[in-house]
Parts: sequence; structure tokens; C-alpha cells
Amino acid sequence: MGTDDRILLAHGSGGKLSHDLIESFLPLFDNKLLDKLDDSAVFQIEGRLAFTTDSYVVSPIFFPGGDIGKLAVCGTINDLAMSGAVPLYLSLSLIIEEGLPLDDLQRVMASVKKAAEEAGVNVVTGDTKVVNRGNADRLFINTSGIGVVPPGVDISGSKAKPGDSIILSGTIGDHGIAVMSQREGLEFSSPVGSDCAPLHSLVADILGVSDQIHCLRDPTRGGLASTLNELARQSKVGIRIEEEKIPVREGVRAACELLGLEPLYVANEGKLVAVVPGAEAKTVIDIMHKNPYGKQAIIIGEVVAEHPGRVVMKTGLGASRIVDMLVGELLPRIC
Amino acid sequence: MGTDDRILLAHGSGGKLSHDLIESFLPLFDNKLLDKLDDSAVFQIEGRLAFTTDSYVVSPIFFPGGDIGKLAVCGTINDLAMSGAVPLYLSLSLIIEEGLPLDDLQRVMASVKKAAEEAGVNVVTGDTKVVNRGNADRLFINTSGIGVVPPGVDISGSKAKPGDSIILSGTIGDHGIAVMSQREGLEFSSPVGSDCAPLHSLVADILGVSDQIHCLRDPTRGGLASTLNELARQSKVGIRIEEEKIPVREGVRAACELLGLEPLYVANEGKLVAVVPGAEAKTVIDIMHKNPYGKQAIIIGEVVAEHPGRVVMKTGLGASRIVDMLVGELLPRIC
Repeated sequence: MGTDDRILLAHGSGGKLSHDLIESFLPLFDNKLLDKLDDSAVFQIEGRLAFTTDSYVVSPIFFPGGDIGKLAVCGTINDLAMSGAVPLYLSLSLIIEEGLPLDDLQRVMASVKKAAEEAGVNVVTGDTKVVNRGNADRLFINTSGIGVVPPGVDISGSKAKPGDSIILSGTIGDHGIAVMSQREGLEFSSPVGSDCAPLHSLVADILGVSDQIHCLRDPTRGGLASTLNELARQSKVGIRIEEEKIPVREGVRAACELLGLEPLYVANEGKLVAVVPGAEAKTVIDIMHKNPYGKQAIIIGEVVAEHPGRVVMKTGLGASRIVDMLVGELLPRIC
Repeated sequence: MGTDDRILLAHGSGGKLSHDLIESFLPLFDNKLLDKLDDSAVFQIEGRLAFTTDSYVVSPIFFPGGDIGKLAVCGTINDLAMSGAVPLYLSLSLIIEEGLPLDDLQRVMASVKKAAEEAGVNVVTGDTKVVNRGNADRLFINTSGIGVVPPGVDISGSKAKPGDSIILSGTIGDHGIAVMSQREGLEFSSPVGSDCAPLHSLVADILGVSDQIHCLRDPTRGGLASTLNELARQSKVGIRIEEEKIPVREGVRAACELLGLEPLYVANEGKLVAVVPGAEAKTVIDIMHKNPYGKQAIIIGEVVAEHPGRVVMKTGLGASRIVDMLVGELLPRIC
């Protein structure tokens, strides 16, 4: 990697420095598919495949509870898991701003490795581009993921039905507030860490006890409110939730008050919403409580036939209000 | 999409404007998998899968012979094809700089659609992020691709053997010079267009006449020289090429002279190198000549047991010189 301790344009040239950089990362992701260094990874697979992609542009790249590397692995694993898939393979594509300290890049890559190992997935193919200083902001990462959907599993945002319960796996707003606090240099009496976590084991637990899971979705950008609106629209049903049921950490609540934010719209990176038939809800909740990422799982509402496409919330004061999709931009570059 | 004609931060919020933007693109990529708008696309597949990823950061985003959209489709299709795979599915992930004219984005997306149609692949999953003005440069695109490798096909950069012929599918340097000329506002008497093209049909033709194709690779960043060095290293063989055999367009030659560039190191986006047993070379060349992207295919050299890991070129004057991998950065952001 030479003696320089920052990323140079030449690290993205496709030439010698590119190869040196890539080879310095190979031991981290030790696997035969990646080691071949061919243009594609080739592997045997059979069944129903899930395929997803996300680019991560979070700023800053290090934040309480995680960094862009952990986020890039967990976020894509979670997108696969929300289709009921068992995550297997990831791609990893970096867009690096010239001048990024190599130490920072190595820290992020170590995070990618750790998160991938925890989730049992292999990084099998990758790409590195470097752009001139001022043409990007430190580091952007794209991960795409491949998983296999077990037989009989058929989960989609379009399958919510009246009578279904809406289960939320835990507190909301943690990731958004953690990143925001770091970015703005804010300090709260109850510091908040990102909830960034891989949710595939939680999903596997849920699918293990019920074959009637209708929808799964992780409320990331746009928060819980936007996710519920997506489900209501895709399924052409109404959704009713109760404000009092939605768990919000004290630090998140305080930060939101200070910043004038509504926790319903703040991003999460380790939470999921499950839509399941009412009769299955207790079984599902019980198993979720046994998983480290579902300990606070709770029913927050139900699917109704009325007001299709709309989400209505009963507030703490007993009034009802429409919860719309996020309009405008609350927290740019949160993921 | 509102009345504003530029991308706003809110288009990346995950909220209403994000959904409006995404929905405006859906008709372009009309397919059931994408239309579901779930977190992953799910589809049945069987066999040996090829999986690849690339981020495209080319500047400018429009250049003679293509744009970043066409490049993002062809580049990833070509990476799949170089494993012998039939390309099937693409992901499409955008990182957009706030302020990008919507017209530009729509032009690029139309290009993506056209290139995907020509190649017979479906864009099945996607993502859109927007970063503040000054935190990216107009538009970066990541595409990841999935293809299926036909039974019996086993192509890898590590399979070159002494006695193999090195076939090049056509002229070198066209893409790099096209982008460079556009960027620098240079005008040459013989204008050069990018060779950006999908090569999967050429690969299919090659695989149709020979089951002994050892390596395929497209010489993109780092040019032909870097690709040949990669093959020599991965296969632990020597490579000998003849300068006189390598086709270079007149405009490229002139531009390279003016700019002090060596065509061997200039990027291509519609060319491939095939390494095949000497006895198969004529059959392969003959079929390549019948494909629009292989009309100028020619044997440029051979694989030897001597000087493993090194590429040696016989120059026009009869001397031999070592052709090393690109050192330093020749043309930043060429793809």
C-alpha cells in the first residue's frame, strides 16, 4: 500500500496501487470466491433467490453504535431478511474521496468483516473507485445482497389484510438520533447509540413459529411512519396504530424535543415491523422476546379495511390523526 | 415529481418525494419484480450463479458514444459475461448530488432502460440516495448483476496455459479517449466515440464454438496492459504480445500522442481479451468476426511458460520490453 497513509487517486486507477489496496483487504474476507479475483463470483445456488441493493452515504462515517461499514452490511442483510430470505452473499463497492486516511478505511473494512461474520455472510465480489477531493464526502459504500427464500415463505408489502396485527420489534428513532447527535456535536444526558443490527436471526425465529407472516419491513429512512404508509398503500388497506404503544427511548425523546423532530419519522437500522394475522400475533411476539433484537417487541396497531392507503394514529390524548409519509427532508444522509 | 426541475435533498428522504421519484421511473423498467417495490426482488433460479458489482463515477456523465447510464449497464453485463454467464438481473443504485437537473437524470435513466433492453436484462431492485451539493459530483451509479453460467463453462483469470493464444476483440483506447476529450474540451480531426457496448452476445458466440475458453476479461480501467498483467499473475504464466498486431484507431493514436498517453493503458468498455488454446484460436476468431462487437478480432500474442507473471511486448522496431501494470493514475474517473 506504499508509504503514504491516505487514499490517492491512483488507488482507483485499476493499476498497481488498486491491486495493492484490494490485496490488502483480501485476508479480511478470506473466502475462495473472492480470492479468485475474477470479474464475477460464481457459485451454485438453487431455489427462490432474493436480490437487493443499497448505497450508504451516512455522514459522519463513524457514529455511536456503528459506522458506515457495519451499516452497509446490516442494512442489506435486513433488506434480504425482510423478504424472508436467508442472507448468503454480499458485494461491496467503495467510492472513496481522495485523501481519506487509510486508517479510516481499514477501520471501516474491519467493521464490514465483523458484521459479515456475525451475520454468516460472505463478501464475494467488490469494486473500488476513487474520486478527486471534493467530488465525494469521504466514503460511500454500496452493498448488494443475495439470499435464498425458504420454500413456502411468501412475504410482501402487498399482503397485509384487515384483522392483521402490526408488531414493532423495539424502540424507534435510535439510529437517526445517534447519527444526528454525532454530526451536530450534541450531547444529551442519556446518550443514544445506533440500533444498527442484523435482523436475519429474528426473522428466522419468526418464520420458525408461523407460516402466516404477511409483511416484514425495516423502518429505515423516513422512519416508522413512512414504512407503515408504504404497507398501507401497497396492500390497499388502512392501518391504525396507538401512540402510547410505540416504545421510544428517553434519550431519543429528549433529543427529538430539542431538535423539533417527530420520532415516527426518524430512521432505524435494527428494527422491523411484522404484519401477521391477529391470531398469530402472540406466538410471534413470544418468540421475538427471546431474540436479542426483539426483546421489546410489541403490538402497536392493526390493519383495517377502512381508509385504505392511510395510517391513522390514536394519540396519547385519545384523538385520532392521520400519519402521513415524510414530506420534505428531515435528516439528510442518515444512512 | 413536483414543479421543481432539480433534484432536492428530499428526493432522498425515504418519504413522499422519494416515492414520487421512484414511481416516475418504474414505467421505464416495467417488470413485475421491480413493481412490487419490496425490499428485495425474489425470483426462481437454478444452477451456477455469477454475481458482480461496479460503481460508476465517470466524469462527465455524458460523453461521445454513451453516458453513465449506458456504461453502468454495459460494464456490469460485461463483468458477468467475462465469467461466461448469461446476464439476467441488474440492481440499480443512484447517489445523486443535490441540484442535478431532473432532465439529466431522466436522460440517464432512459439510457439505462435502452441498454438493459438491448442486453435482455431486467432491472429488478434499486435504491436512490441524495447528498448535499458539493458532497458528490452530479451522479454516481452502482449496478450489481446476476447471471447464470451454462453447464460445462469454467472460465477464470487463473486458467491461462502456455500455448494459449491471446485474442483481442478490437481497437483499444476508444472509451478513455472519448471521455477525456469531452472532459477537456479537446477536438480532434478524427473524433473518437466510446466503444461502450454489451459483450454478452459475443461471449455466447465464442462459447458456442469452443468449450475450451480459458480466460475472458474486458480491459477497462488500467487498459489492456493491466488486464494482461492480471491474467499473467493469476495464471502464473508469461504473456508475449506484438505491438504491431494491436489495433488502435487513428483518432486514438493522435489523441494519445498529443496527451502523452500510452494506448495500452487507456480504458475500454466494449472490448474483451480471450485466452484460448492455440488450436482453437482460428475457430474462435472466425465466429467473433461475425458479431458486430468482434469484427476486428485478432490474435495479439501468446501465453508462454517463461517469465511467469510478466507481460513482454515485441515492439514495432523488433525490440522486446516489459509491459507493467499501470503505475499511478492516468485518467481519473474514466468509468
